[in-house]
Amino acid sequence: MSAEQGGFAAWQAAQLARVERALNEWMPAQAPAGLGEVMRYAVQGGGKRLRPLLALAACEAVEGAPQAALRAACAVELIHAYSLVHDDMPCMDNDVLRRGKPTVHVQFGQAQALLAGDALQALAFEILTPEPSAAASADMPAAMQAALCRLLARAAGADGMAGGQAIDLASVGLPLTEPELRAMHRRKTGALLLASVRMGAACAAHPLPAAALQALDAYGQALGLAFQVVDDVLDVTADSALLGKTAGKDAAAGKPTYVSLLGLEAARQLAADLLAQAENALNALQASGLAHTQPLHALARQVVQRQR
Amino acid sequence: MSAEQGGFAAWQAAQLARVERALNEWMPAQAPAGLGEVMRYAVQGGGKRLRPLLALAACEAVEGAPQAALRAACAVELIHAYSLVHDDMPCMDNDVLRRGKPTVHVQFGQAQALLAGDALQALAFEILTPEPSAAASADMPAAMQAALCRLLARAAGADGMAGGQAIDLASVGLPLTEPELRAMHRRKTGALLLASVRMGAACAAHPLPAAALQALDAYGQALGLAFQVVDDVLDVTADSALLGKTAGKDAAAGKPTYVSLLGLEAARQLAADLLAQAENALNALQASGLAHTQPLHALARQVVQRQR
Repeated sequence: MSAEQGGFAAWQAAQLARVERALNEWMPAQAPAGLGEVMRYAVQGGGKRLRPLLALAACEAVEGAPQAALRAACAVELIHAYSLVHDDMPCMDNDVLRRGKPTVHVQFGQAQALLAGDALQALAFEILTPEPSAAASADMPAAMQAALCRLLARAAGADGMAGGQAIDLASVGLPLTEPELRAMHRRKTGALLLASVRMGAACAAHPLPAAALQALDAYGQALGLAFQVVDDVLDVTADSALLGKTAGKDAAAGKPTYVSLLGLEAARQLAADLLAQAENALNALQASGLAHTQPLHALARQVVQRQR
Repeated sequence: MSAEQGGFAAWQAAQLARVERALNEWMPAQAPAGLGEVMRYAVQGGGKRLRPLLALAACEAVEGAPQAALRAACAVELIHAYSLVHDDMPCMDNDVLRRGKPTVHVQFGQAQALLAGDALQALAFEILTPEPSAAASADMPAAMQAALCRLLARAAGADGMAGGQAIDLASVGLPLTEPELRAMHRRKTGALLLASVRMGAACAAHPLPAAALQALDAYGQALGLAFQVVDDVLDVTADSALLGKTAGKDAAAGKPTYVSLLGLEAARQLAADLLAQAENALNALQASGLAHTQPLHALARQVVQRQR
């Protein structure tokens, strides 16, 4: 392990610990009728926390407010977690295994899964809007709170994640073109990954130069698409035990994927090209005067080189 | 019809037209894969718009910003609409009729109902956070945007509406006491009705006196509980055609209601007592210096005296 990698591993471990602690703290302690337990189950245990790490890394790049970024990081993870709960339900993907554990509706029933997902979405916006009198608001002025809610709501809604899932549902068995597949994934997974980067950057104390915002967006877009391409590759190359979910499921369901569209090798090459795009964007970010891009670099490599 | 009632009828008609126009305008025009159509179906056609009217009436009472209040009004209605879509699904109440029309999952399928509900929740927060550069932000500073998101997220989540629904699910067939039933409804329907009043009041340009905030909260709490008591009464006294949904369903499902707990006459008396509480709170609001309470008065009477 190089010194640079060692630095990133330590950074990642420290940030993951912060995120787990904060998620645990902000989950409702006394939610009624077991709902809190269901929400915890949905959020805890085994997630890679890519979105929180992206938000925290972007905040470091812009030298933003660390406590605000922690709220942004957790909020985006709660949206991701709720989407998995709903996506796994029988009327959607009907998946029984997630991160090696029974999915939420298998464990607690469909009604509780539905409600816990709904409550997790609300909790995301609750975390982003601490009371002005609360200590948490010290480095999180109202304009930052509103900006974070704005970014997250747009990424989660009909023009973002939920819309992407609607396209996904409607496209089973259909021969999508590469631009159509890309448009679906830009919403379905890309919007929330891009929002993670943008939300971290929105924790900057001062407005950022336009060139920096453009570079961060280019990074987030390339990384978001790379994530999905690698997901499609792993769906055919990894086994279920390693993946922690049912492998080969997309192909079996007749869902269009980058592998079915381009073939395995071309899909791998596309992932490598997207990594290069992300790294170029980070070089542009550095050129705009922001130096702390190393965690963003390392996360992009991790997304493309991961085995699960 | 008295002059006062005539004045309210005209106010109500004008506000309803504003709300319908705004809901229509803010619904996504180009949402993918038919999702926009499902969202429109869920929101349009036959709702009483009680929550928007409460928000707009509360804003008038505090002489707040009308355009901000319209956003608050629509946001709270979108949360209400999404909760009905999810609540009607087979894994929850399994209802096929709503406002005299097939429920969303009957019309479009469960997956679309689930996604449209999710997207409606996100849209509520999107509407509350217009870009600072947008014309809509002129009377909606960031502190107001953040306050509105804060109130709505708390009312919708595990300690509010979603938590109330979890108690409701868990209590089918159980003998709840009156305090337990009240605690359930305080979350399930009361939290969002109270939030409607609070969000309207949060559109005030200046901080309100503590006495005014207390009076508005007392009004919202009494009205929220009255709404549910009257709902329970109508569930046994109205017929399905008038109600626009399946009457007698709560009793048939073994759900505890105010009628099953107190009997019909005592439940009616409780509703009358709560109306008196709400009116007393409005008198206190006037005493705190806010004069325009007539729409709030009329809405409380309407909630208790409605036939459907």
